[in-house]
Amino acid sequence: LLGNPRTHHIVHVNPTQPVNRKEPEAVRITVYNYNEKECTKEVFSEIESVCPFHNNDRITWINIDGLRKSDVEKVAAHYGIHALIVEDILSLQQRPKMDEVDDILYCLLNMLYYNGEGGCVEHEQVSIVLGKNFVITFQEDPDRDVFNDIRAKLQQAHSKLRQRGADFLAYTMLDLIVDNYFLVMEKLGERIENIEEVIVHSRSQHSMSTLNNLRKELIVLKRNLAPVRDMISNIMRSESPLLEERTTKYFKDVHDHILQAYDLSENYRDILISMQDLNMNNLNLRMNEVMKVMAIVTCLMAPATVIGGIFGMNFDIIPTAHNQWGFYTAVGLMLIIPVAMLIVFKKRGWF
Amino acid sequence: LLGNPRTHHIVHVNPTQPVNRKEPEAVRITVYNYNEKECTKEVFSEIESVCPFHNNDRITWINIDGLRKSDVEKVAAHYGIHALIVEDILSLQQRPKMDEVDDILYCLLNMLYYNGEGGCVEHEQVSIVLGKNFVITFQEDPDRDVFNDIRAKLQQAHSKLRQRGADFLAYTMLDLIVDNYFLVMEKLGERIENIEEVIVHSRSQHSMSTLNNLRKELIVLKRNLAPVRDMISNIMRSESPLLEERTTKYFKDVHDHILQAYDLSENYRDILISMQDLNMNNLNLRMNEVMKVMAIVTCLMAPATVIGGIFGMNFDIIPTAHNQWGFYTAVGLMLIIPVAMLIVFKKRGWF
Amino acid sequence: LLGNPRTHHIVHVNPTQPVNRKEPEAVRITVYNYNEKECTKEVFSEIESVCPFHNNDRITWINIDGLRKSDVEKVAAHYGIHALIVEDILSLQQRPKMDEVDDILYCLLNMLYYNGEGGCVEHEQVSIVLGKNFVITFQEDPDRDVFNDIRAKLQQAHSKLRQRGADFLAYTMLDLIVDNYFLVMEKLGERIENIEEVIVHSRSQHSMSTLNNLRKELIVLKRNLAPVRDMISNIMRSESPLLEERTTKYFKDVHDHILQAYDLSENYRDILISMQDLNMNNLNLRMNEVMKVMAIVTCLMAPATVIGGIFGMNFDIIPTAHNQWGFYTAVGLMLIIPVAMLIVFKKRGWF
Amino acid sequence: LLGNPRTHHIVHVNPTQPVNRKEPEAVRITVYNYNEKECTKEVFSEIESVCPFHNNDRITWINIDGLRKSDVEKVAAHYGIHALIVEDILSLQQRPKMDEVDDILYCLLNMLYYNGEGGCVEHEQVSIVLGKNFVITFQEDPDRDVFNDIRAKLQQAHSKLRQRGADFLAYTMLDLIVDNYFLVMEKLGERIENIEEVIVHSRSQHSMSTLNNLRKELIVLKRNLAPVRDMISNIMRSESPLLEERTTKYFKDVHDHILQAYDLSENYRDILISMQDLNMNNLNLRMNEVMKVMAIVTCLMAPATVIGGIFGMNFDIIPTAHNQWGFYTAVGLMLIIPVAMLIVFKKRGWF
Amino acid sequence: LLGNPRTHHIVHVNPTQPVNRKEPEAVRITVYNYNEKECTKEVFSEIESVCPFHNNDRITWINIDGLRKSDVEKVAAHYGIHALIVEDILSLQQRPKMDEVDDILYCLLNMLYYNGEGGCVEHEQVSIVLGKNFVITFQEDPDRDVFNDIRAKLQQAHSKLRQRGADFLAYTMLDLIVDNYFLVMEKLGERIENIEEVIVHSRSQHSMSTLNNLRKELIVLKRNLAPVRDMISNIMRSESPLLEERTTKYFKDVHDHILQAYDLSENYRDILISMQDLNMNNLNLRMNEVMKVMAIVTCLMAPATVIGGIFGMNFDIIPTAHNQWGFYTAVGLMLIIPVAMLIVFKKRGWF
Repeated sequence: LLGNPRTHHIVHVNPTQPVNRKEPEAVRITVYNYNEKECTKEVFSEIESVCPFHNNDRITWINIDGLRKSDVEKVAAHYGIHALIVEDILSLQQRPKMDEVDDILYCLLNMLYYNGEGGCVEHEQVSIVLGKNFVITFQEDPDRDVFNDIRAKLQQAHSKLRQRGADFLAYTMLDLIVDNYFLVMEKLGERIENIEEVIVHSRSQHSMSTLNNLRKELIVLKRNLAPVRDMISNIMRSESPLLEERTTKYFKDVHDHILQAYDLSENYRDILISMQDLNMNNLNLRMNEVMKVMAIVTCLMAPATVIGGIFGMNFDIIPTAHNQWGFYTAVGLMLIIPVAMLIVFKKRGWF
Repeated sequence: LLGNPRTHHIVHVNPTQPVNRKEPEAVRITVYNYNEKECTKEVFSEIESVCPFHNNDRITWINIDGLRKSDVEKVAAHYGIHALIVEDILSLQQRPKMDEVDDILYCLLNMLYYNGEGGCVEHEQVSIVLGKNFVITFQEDPDRDVFNDIRAKLQQAHSKLRQRGADFLAYTMLDLIVDNYFLVMEKLGERIENIEEVIVHSRSQHSMSTLNNLRKELIVLKRNLAPVRDMISNIMRSESPLLEERTTKYFKDVHDHILQAYDLSENYRDILISMQDLNMNNLNLRMNEVMKVMAIVTCLMAPATVIGGIFGMNFDIIPTAHNQWGFYTAVGLMLIIPVAMLIVFKKRGWF
Repeated sequence: LLGNPRTHHIVHVNPTQPVNRKEPEAVRITVYNYNEKECTKEVFSEIESVCPFHNNDRITWINIDGLRKSDVEKVAAHYGIHALIVEDILSLQQRPKMDEVDDILYCLLNMLYYNGEGGCVEHEQVSIVLGKNFVITFQEDPDRDVFNDIRAKLQQAHSKLRQRGADFLAYTMLDLIVDNYFLVMEKLGERIENIEEVIVHSRSQHSMSTLNNLRKELIVLKRNLAPVRDMISNIMRSESPLLEERTTKYFKDVHDHILQAYDLSENYRDILISMQDLNMNNLNLRMNEVMKVMAIVTCLMAPATVIGGIFGMNFDIIPTAHNQWGFYTAVGLMLIIPVAMLIVFKKRGWF
Repeated sequence: LLGNPRTHHIVHVNPTQPVNRKEPEAVRITVYNYNEKECTKEVFSEIESVCPFHNNDRITWINIDGLRKSDVEKVAAHYGIHALIVEDILSLQQRPKMDEVDDILYCLLNMLYYNGEGGCVEHEQVSIVLGKNFVITFQEDPDRDVFNDIRAKLQQAHSKLRQRGADFLAYTMLDLIVDNYFLVMEKLGERIENIEEVIVHSRSQHSMSTLNNLRKELIVLKRNLAPVRDMISNIMRSESPLLEERTTKYFKDVHDHILQAYDLSENYRDILISMQDLNMNNLNLRMNEVMKVMAIVTCLMAPATVIGGIFGMNFDIIPTAHNQWGFYTAVGLMLIIPVAMLIVFKKRGWF
Repeated sequence: LLGNPRTHHIVHVNPTQPVNRKEPEAVRITVYNYNEKECTKEVFSEIESVCPFHNNDRITWINIDGLRKSDVEKVAAHYGIHALIVEDILSLQQRPKMDEVDDILYCLLNMLYYNGEGGCVEHEQVSIVLGKNFVITFQEDPDRDVFNDIRAKLQQAHSKLRQRGADFLAYTMLDLIVDNYFLVMEKLGERIENIEEVIVHSRSQHSMSTLNNLRKELIVLKRNLAPVRDMISNIMRSESPLLEERTTKYFKDVHDHILQAYDLSENYRDILISMQDLNMNNLNLRMNEVMKVMAIVTCLMAPATVIGGIFGMNFDIIPTAHNQWGFYTAVGLMLIIPVAMLIVFKKRGWF
């Protein structure tokens, strides 16, 4: 239940020692070079190919799938990215953060995916480097394509994306990632609903560990949301020349979304906790109900046993022993006493 | 108990993808055009009819019941409302918020209704767009009329509403919505009181899940109150030219009300939690009481069973077996021992 | 236990609809008009009588016991009090607050009384309106006299009250009300002490609901203290010309007192919670103790029952059945086995 | 257990009515008058004797043990101390606070003592009045000497105390009091350790109420630490001319200490709470263990009783009744069935 | 389980009385004197040897292993370190803090080690004194070498450490210590994972006290992380001339790391708490399961006992007593009744 897929939540890799990670054998580099009129797309596998795109009058988006130390360092050297940012790009399991060094604005955050099979939330670290007229993005996993939606929009000449600058491209990326959080939360919400159904109706004991797992998923989710919220509010307050005035309101919009996501996660957490209480109380009450019935039944039998014992004693002189109705009287007592007890118990509301 | 009507609390629609929602077939547009002297009211069903009201010297209130994407976009284009605000108006399940874009002040909040049958709080999203000399309001559900009270006041020539500007109209709307929160809270308060009665007197187990439901309703309520509080304090701090100096104290008044509503919801929450504790403890103590009585009765019978067993053994020589008073002695013992035990138990305060 | 007197804590009247309240038939108006040298006191029942006191060179204190809409509006019109303040004065169940409108400083707070019989905290709303050279106070209940102490001081020509301005009069009123909170808390503190005694010594189950009630009283108390604290710190920060420089340190003193009251209420709450834990644990341990003894006694009897059953079987050949010492051996066994069990139980520390 | 010595934690005297307190019959006034070169010490019992020390060119420390209203008022009048400060000095059970009135800086705080016998924390209110070239201290209890250490240092001509101004003397006093908090916390820490030992090893039920008491002591302690922390940070921020620049870093040092004390008290609290959980769980598990064994033993005996009952029935025809091995078979069954049950129970890990 | 190695967490030494501590007999002083071109390393045992290194044009790092009062005072006198800092260096069990006195920037923090055997977190106090062109570090324990990594880097002429100033050296030290926190947390994370495995699968009772211990370790850890976080953010805000502009971003990087460590510790704490709940609930449910089975078995036997008792009574006339099938009927009843009961119990879902 609490097996392998979630272990990466607990043992975090030391963020300053990225060496343990196996480097990917191949990286895929996609370069979009566009302005209002034109948009070219090129795919490379050699990092050196991205250098010519620097300092042209179009906007360049370089997306690098797969993190190889030498590659990142080469790009950084060419595009003037500080060594500390390179370190952050390469080390995984980082806390989302935002950095402004020299003329570069750097955002690190996690794309979240809901893994339906394992029932857990997975994340992929995404680095977004915004410079003058360029955006460079770094992704961990070459197989997953975080920015698919953006690609489609870039092809449309009349889209807002094509008409605005590099900061709008960066905004679109953040917006995409934050919107994706809602998809993940929707899945978690559905699971919470299903469990609620189970708790209220069938009261299985499994629900306890499922609730516990969900609570852990929410912890992970919330720990991702809070720093992203801070990150975006930092971007809004930043007076970087890279951010145009007219893009500000878009960042405010993302900020509203992340606030809402955070609120929602708090909501889920509160609901989960009150469901855990309800579940535990349900299980306890049900168990106690059984114990009570057993105790009552056992208790009702006891007087009959005693009466049986009384007339089973081997004394020579037992009153009514030779009486014709003796046996029936005794058995009658055995019935009357428990029934009387039952009536008393019932009256006191004991069952 | 925890069925359908409340599911919308848990699975929130992704705020950035409003497509799933079915668009209403008809919308009802009501336009009030007034100044101190005159007030005209017109009802349309075509969105184009609202355009002529722009930029006249009266104050215009356009109320649109039913959200249709094309309609909202047309109004927005004509009245200079930014695309991001249009997006907010159209997407539902939003967190209450306030936005100042260009010369427009935008408020999004939820009207709350108490559904007496389902025992749950329902909400309808209301958008208020304040511009120079006009207010445009958007409502989700054409059947519910949030702003009824305002309509009556607008008809009265001497009402303050008629003598002030568009900002006072917007204030009146916020005031109406916030005041409505108190009606909802009153209903919840009544239910809390009823449950308290039930818990203290009849101690039914149903109270547990009812308390749990109420706690969930309060979570929903509080999540609506907190952002509205922030929204109104943002309006107060805003230095928008749309807000006249003399309206400020009215917004401060709404702010006091929403603070009070928030306090009250905290109050309810604390009371609910302490009632849940009391209820659980009551149920436990009562269950334990029954178990204790059963255990005592069973325990008191045990010695009699043993004595019966002793004299029921088939030995040839059993002392007192042939004695005339043997049987009575044994039965006497069966009575004396439990009575002695009872006295000891009583003395120790065990029942 | 949780009966009527406290219901007003839960169902708050909607603060914006004061209509339900029955208006008092008679009001009592007391006017003090004083300066350093003279002090006159007059009692009226007609509201018009207070008008002549405006704008004279003495300080005027008008105390109005009993809230009648028409009266309040007349006074407000004459003394220049804003309509929003009138609304606050008339609506009850308000959250304590402070307002500065035009040249008026308005404070709304609750006088608390401890009702010894019901064991609950009652409150009466008091409005204090401070203007240039006058203070007008509004009280809900004509029978209670909140400001008795001040009356006595006003009669003394050499009292500080007579020598200072209207702001000092307002300070004295706030001080009186805040000091009264301590009297209420003292009573609650005494009850907490009494209950502690009960819990530690006699362990009655009643203590649970008494603790619960006390916790609710504290919630009410604290919800009154927190906004008063904010109110007074707002007065201190206010730069109103109504407040003389030399009065500031007196407001700081009230602020210290209300802080202390708030601290104390937190103290009480923490103590109550830890007492609730102690109480519940005590009750549980005691119940479990009884159950354990019963289980042990029942368990000790079981072997004797079995032995009795063995020798009570109707087989032709039962060993030792014809033996002279058979019976005694069996009964001996019935005694030895439980004693042996007891020794084992004791050794393991099971009782 | 929760007897008299701690009652003063709960029922606080109303801070504004110091009248109930019995005034001491005698006060002891000690005056140190020193500069870098000389230091004189004089002891008086009449308050008038302290007047001549005002406004000389040395630094004067007047320590008054025992609070008598008339005395304090005389000193205040002579040294220019505001009436509100006099009120604070005289009323006990005050919250630690700091005040700057006119040219006086006033600190009120509590000296804490650990009472080894009662196992509780006692406090004595200390008032420190810092003026130009003088410090006046007021103590409640003439028998306890809070500032002993300082006396010794004042005798040493080369001590820093003698070379600095009155503000350094005040700092030394605060430092002494704060350092004393650590001594009290050390004692509490030792008691926590002892209880931990008891809980883990012998599991007595007494530990529950001891833990509860300790938790109450910590509440008291923390309520003293938090306002002292605020007080000292207020002194640091104060721009009073009484405080020399070079003394600032010393106040920062006291501030670090009080922060550490506060942290430590939080630490203790967390440890106490987790110990309470552990203790309660230990007691419960142990109780349940006993109940389980009893239930198992009782359950194992039941089949034997049934078998005994079967063959004890008085039917004419009982199979095997006349058989030679009947009895042994029956007794054998009585043994085999419980053993078989035991094996099943063991296999399922039920004991 | 909760024995000696961790006692130092609870009883903190009074920070102002460092006298109890035994002074080490020998200290080891290592001096690195370097600039971009050269780097010399010298080891001394006499404190006087470090004086000549003051005020030369290279950067000097003096590392002192072992705290001896006289030594620290000599160094402080020579390098202009304030007496209050000397006090902090010498007293142990201090809360991490940062101080700026005169031209000195002083950091005190704890190096944490995970003691695999005791399963506890140990700490060693480290003092870092940054002055103009020099860094002096003080360590408690001569056997442990905190700054090993830095030594290696200092030997490399082209390392950034050699090319930058003393502030970069101080940064490198802080970075090293903070990075080390992650190693400790990784170990704790592994233990948490192991325990989770144990709880879910084998459900031993030991897990309870292990969880409790881990919780205490986390309290200690967190209390170290929070002040270090504040310390580093203070350094970042400090405008000390000792810190070069270009080093700021490095401190921001350490700040991000410590934030992440703090987040992670919160994560662990939440997971631990939810594991404690799960564990306790698991233990309870399992215990209750056993009790239920016992109660059911006992209850099922009771009717058979009663029937045995009925036909064991010694009446002359017992119906069916002489009947050939009487015995079998009775035994049949003894079987049929419990089976019927079982079916009812099963139907109601009681087991």
